[in-house]
Amino acid sequence: MGSSFGTLFRVATWGESHGGGIGVVVDGCPPRLPLAVEDLQADLDRRRPGQSRLTTQRQEGDAAEILSGVFEGRTTGTPIGVLVRNADARPEAYDHLRDVYRPSHADFTYDAKYGHRNHEGGGRSSARETIGRVAAGAIARRLLAEACGIEVLAWVSQVHTITAQVHASTVSLDQVEADPTRCPDPDAAAAMTFAIEDARSNGDSLGGIVTCVARAVPAGLGEPVFDRLEADLAKGMLSLPAAKGFDVGSGFDSVSMTGLAHNDPFVPGADGPVAAANRSGGVQGGISNGAEVVFRVAFKPTATINSAQDTVDTGNNPVTLEAKGRHDPCVLPRAVPMVEAMALLVLADHWLRQQAVDVLGR
Amino acid sequence: MGSSFGTLFRVATWGESHGGGIGVVVDGCPPRLPLAVEDLQADLDRRRPGQSRLTTQRQEGDAAEILSGVFEGRTTGTPIGVLVRNADARPEAYDHLRDVYRPSHADFTYDAKYGHRNHEGGGRSSARETIGRVAAGAIARRLLAEACGIEVLAWVSQVHTITAQVHASTVSLDQVEADPTRCPDPDAAAAMTFAIEDARSNGDSLGGIVTCVARAVPAGLGEPVFDRLEADLAKGMLSLPAAKGFDVGSGFDSVSMTGLAHNDPFVPGADGPVAAANRSGGVQGGISNGAEVVFRVAFKPTATINSAQDTVDTGNNPVTLEAKGRHDPCVLPRAVPMVEAMALLVLADHWLRQQAVDVLGR
Amino acid sequence: MGSSFGTLFRVATWGESHGGGIGVVVDGCPPRLPLAVEDLQADLDRRRPGQSRLTTQRQEGDAAEILSGVFEGRTTGTPIGVLVRNADARPEAYDHLRDVYRPSHADFTYDAKYGHRNHEGGGRSSARETIGRVAAGAIARRLLAEACGIEVLAWVSQVHTITAQVHASTVSLDQVEADPTRCPDPDAAAAMTFAIEDARSNGDSLGGIVTCVARAVPAGLGEPVFDRLEADLAKGMLSLPAAKGFDVGSGFDSVSMTGLAHNDPFVPGADGPVAAANRSGGVQGGISNGAEVVFRVAFKPTATINSAQDTVDTGNNPVTLEAKGRHDPCVLPRAVPMVEAMALLVLADHWLRQQAVDVLGR
Amino acid sequence: MGSSFGTLFRVATWGESHGGGIGVVVDGCPPRLPLAVEDLQADLDRRRPGQSRLTTQRQEGDAAEILSGVFEGRTTGTPIGVLVRNADARPEAYDHLRDVYRPSHADFTYDAKYGHRNHEGGGRSSARETIGRVAAGAIARRLLAEACGIEVLAWVSQVHTITAQVHASTVSLDQVEADPTRCPDPDAAAAMTFAIEDARSNGDSLGGIVTCVARAVPAGLGEPVFDRLEADLAKGMLSLPAAKGFDVGSGFDSVSMTGLAHNDPFVPGADGPVAAANRSGGVQGGISNGAEVVFRVAFKPTATINSAQDTVDTGNNPVTLEAKGRHDPCVLPRAVPMVEAMALLVLADHWLRQQAVDVLGR
Repeated sequence: MGSSFGTLFRVATWGESHGGGIGVVVDGCPPRLPLAVEDLQADLDRRRPGQSRLTTQRQEGDAAEILSGVFEGRTTGTPIGVLVRNADARPEAYDHLRDVYRPSHADFTYDAKYGHRNHEGGGRSSARETIGRVAAGAIARRLLAEACGIEVLAWVSQVHTITAQVHASTVSLDQVEADPTRCPDPDAAAAMTFAIEDARSNGDSLGGIVTCVARAVPAGLGEPVFDRLEADLAKGMLSLPAAKGFDVGSGFDSVSMTGLAHNDPFVPGADGPVAAANRSGGVQGGISNGAEVVFRVAFKPTATINSAQDTVDTGNNPVTLEAKGRHDPCVLPRAVPMVEAMALLVLADHWLRQQAVDVLGR
Repeated sequence: MGSSFGTLFRVATWGESHGGGIGVVVDGCPPRLPLAVEDLQADLDRRRPGQSRLTTQRQEGDAAEILSGVFEGRTTGTPIGVLVRNADARPEAYDHLRDVYRPSHADFTYDAKYGHRNHEGGGRSSARETIGRVAAGAIARRLLAEACGIEVLAWVSQVHTITAQVHASTVSLDQVEADPTRCPDPDAAAAMTFAIEDARSNGDSLGGIVTCVARAVPAGLGEPVFDRLEADLAKGMLSLPAAKGFDVGSGFDSVSMTGLAHNDPFVPGADGPVAAANRSGGVQGGISNGAEVVFRVAFKPTATINSAQDTVDTGNNPVTLEAKGRHDPCVLPRAVPMVEAMALLVLADHWLRQQAVDVLGR
Repeated sequence: MGSSFGTLFRVATWGESHGGGIGVVVDGCPPRLPLAVEDLQADLDRRRPGQSRLTTQRQEGDAAEILSGVFEGRTTGTPIGVLVRNADARPEAYDHLRDVYRPSHADFTYDAKYGHRNHEGGGRSSARETIGRVAAGAIARRLLAEACGIEVLAWVSQVHTITAQVHASTVSLDQVEADPTRCPDPDAAAAMTFAIEDARSNGDSLGGIVTCVARAVPAGLGEPVFDRLEADLAKGMLSLPAAKGFDVGSGFDSVSMTGLAHNDPFVPGADGPVAAANRSGGVQGGISNGAEVVFRVAFKPTATINSAQDTVDTGNNPVTLEAKGRHDPCVLPRAVPMVEAMALLVLADHWLRQQAVDVLGR
Repeated sequence: MGSSFGTLFRVATWGESHGGGIGVVVDGCPPRLPLAVEDLQADLDRRRPGQSRLTTQRQEGDAAEILSGVFEGRTTGTPIGVLVRNADARPEAYDHLRDVYRPSHADFTYDAKYGHRNHEGGGRSSARETIGRVAAGAIARRLLAEACGIEVLAWVSQVHTITAQVHASTVSLDQVEADPTRCPDPDAAAAMTFAIEDARSNGDSLGGIVTCVARAVPAGLGEPVFDRLEADLAKGMLSLPAAKGFDVGSGFDSVSMTGLAHNDPFVPGADGPVAAANRSGGVQGGISNGAEVVFRVAFKPTATINSAQDTVDTGNNPVTLEAKGRHDPCVLPRAVPMVEAMALLVLADHWLRQQAVDVLGR
């Protein structure tokens, strides 16, 4: 009962890695928004497997079909149903996983919780589940562009110990998409590529960090005390497969600063006060302050590795797992559109919520 | 519209720093739970100001009154209303803040969002708001103890650059409460005390990290894909005042590990598979795996400092803010019960949700 | 876990007949709304006991205190906490009900559900619980008046077999309040008064119907397919104590009409199409159409009667219940502000929701 | 943003009359429930058009596909996605309705609310939307049968002025399905058939009443004060197309009774107190009392009629609407499975909610 997200821009996802398909229902997208399946496909193509040699070689076109909610090229305000069929499913390739709990995977916990598990390709816990999120995020992207100009851009800022040297305010989508790593620093991208390929050849895997920036966010988004903008972003990000951490603005680095050094002095701006240093990361007291919203998401190394591992089976007996199958040695490049999608969903939801807050004359 | 939290164990908080009081309604606490106001007061006393020389000197007994939902010493299953009156309110002490936006505070964003702001003591954005959370968390603590034995314990693991050397599995409440810093490592606690007092005397402030562990969590709690246990924990933590980051298990440190080193091999345990190394931090695929749930929360240095700062006023004019008033030079010691409260709320909610999942025979 | 209502204008009520008090938290009221405790008291006074000889003689001033969310006479957009203390509580008067299940009351079902029950005055199932609703409804009334001019008015249209002869479009608040029955037809009111007093003197009780009209409702409110305006009204009304039925527009009477006679032909109006006959009762397809929203609520005869009744005790033994205590022989006059409150809550919520729907240019 | 329903057994529907299809996502169905597409099809076949000469002649097999959430014949606890493709769509048949507001339809209100409308077959406001509800209701039916034995049965108890003479406690599914009218009283069924055919031949239409009973409902379901069992039933029923009224137990008829006659005296039963007369309709104080839950739903005469009608067009000009197209002259027979579906959804949700209430020892 946890597969829906959002208060007003509400998405409900469904589907498994090897079932009849994957999909999402978006309920709450305002009417009259121009929307075509191509809007969805652009983001889905950035998420899909097989797009580069750095990712899993599973071949999926991930072609989306909009089943409802759009009429003559514009949304009707009613639920938008989206379906992506699974094509390159090979359920038989997972027969050996029926009775084994892979380390650091969700096999055991799904059994503990549900007592009945679709083991094919990870079932519901597969990253393939994020197709629905990315499709919904693309709709949110279109809405925000049309309604208020908010833009969201993420990139790979770290893989293992390799860090990108870029400034959040100047990164562009072209720079991000220029390399299969989705790292906008070419030198770092080259080193990441080498490291990822090295890990793959060693039967190993790598983790990393995605940094995300939301631009042109108006001041006022976020609903204290629980539905703070950063709280909903944190939830969205930690709901992504393999995500282990989140911070906003100065984040964990703020710990070793003092208040005098860390505080963001306001300066007069053309449209009002501006927190020029933006150590707050665009949010103060749970509400956007008009500066860029900047946050980071930590992803662990891929749990699936091409090496033998000790583990137990469903009967609690020790076994050795011989890894096989298609997977990503590093999820970071494909995590970028997922992070963007969750940020877009949070921002669309909070932008809509604010329309119902600011209703009486000032 | 963001002041409620939880699906089945649902809390709604209200109140401001200098209004008529602070309170919470807990809707969904199961009936027949033994509960007395003393259960709430124990945690409220750990949160209240003035408990040590490290905290603000505002004098508040924070005495709670249970107004409903408890009859003859046990809960009735109906909403539990809790009220804490404000006692040592000094609204006139905030007159100078009516027209000024304090750096890294929520003054500006509340104005941007709501257009009308209670400036007295920060109004709703004051940490005093967390009284309602802590009271509700104490009820959740009682429920979890009675229903399934889950225990939650947090402590200060870092202040500025001073880190505690402790092992999450062995820290005890007595150790945490032995020092006003709530750091269970006595050497680190002494250094933290010195650093905090030094910062105060310099008109400065410090941040830090709270580590939290939940013990005896049964496998199976958490509701993928969005309401993952760690996602709801992340939201709860980032909803706390001054929180800037969250990670679970190996968290941000996992980034520089490889999959071979990071994966948690299962070993056979007495009651089923055990992830002995617990780098996952007790959650896999969004669901608890029976190991201790371990996470960290980063808090920035207190925004209120006793030093002059440049900022702007509500008319967008540059001004110099002369700090005065009572505040904490480091929020960490008092953040400990807040972190516990949010963890308790999340766990109580997910434990109840699981009662509605595991209903058919295995 | 069912004591909150609404999506954006969200209320959470708490409290029992003889506990520490009754209250409500309103989360989602827009900021900058002028609001004073007098706004609440006006409606609370129409609900309170002892206001006429037709109602229970329990003496309660039901004085409300606004504890948060209002600053210098206007709402701040943060939760509004309201408290009404119980004054004339006589818990000892209910000792004889500790072990008895009163017929057609909630004593047995509360025990069946919760296993622990506050029997004093009905505890949470007392109509006293509606204080929180009426206080919240008064805030919604203020919001709708300020924001869009919607007005809600209810009256007693039937008691037992006595029906009022009035036209929904012309009834005024003055007419309703002119008589303690809250029936705007003076002849019917006189007959109702006689019937109620006769029932009381016979140890009996009467039911009736409240009719409610919402005026100046703009076209477009309601969220198909589940959150239709009439569906949320129906839920709100059936959540009231003693309510047994709801219908909208032609309602149950439509059953014996044919489509040709029942359909509402549109005619051109000054501001667009008008359904002049308004047999639809102001809603079509779940959405308001600009006509008056008109609905009815059926209330059963009061379950508490001053006559001996057969029933069983908590040990499942037959007993005779000797009625005593203070109660209303007919709830209808006091149900009027309750019906209005629920209608106001539904309309405020849907009006706010529509602000988040109609956001892109037409 | 109103197309989802339920708290724990949560359904989200999508789809239009002539779009790519209709579907539903059920999130919260417990794992390990045996479920096959045939379970859904049985109820869908009772809802589908063309099943008898009394219904619309649109030919739709309404064949359902389960896309997710079921593995090897049992539910996995993850979202169940269901898709029904539209087959016999004839969008061109609706060209003449693009610019006309049909009387008592949702054409005008959808335009008022959304400003952009799929006019083909009524779009989202078509009764075809209820496919998703009926599919979800069939899953709920399977759950309730497996988990606790609750059964739900509805029938046509009135068409126009013709009323069935049956007793709610003894009606069987076979009796209901024995006649295309779904009226279990053969004499009344014959009269209803004649009346419906007569209305059709006159270009007219009829309304009626569906009565529904839920059997073997354990005492304790329902969550006061807002989520009372009857309140959620009322909402579910008023969310159905053409529904105009709801009452439970004695309902509107209770108004003309007195308390002495109406009260349900408890008598000792084998398993505890029993409200033998069941005038309460199985609910007291918002909670089931162990008796049969009995309620009625009033449906207006079908708005679509084969007669010329005055109305206005989208430019607010008077026009005459010449009716054509396929429709039901009386929706009652096909409303029966819709009413059952909503009742099943409400009961499944409340049964699950009670599993999270009754968790501490008695």
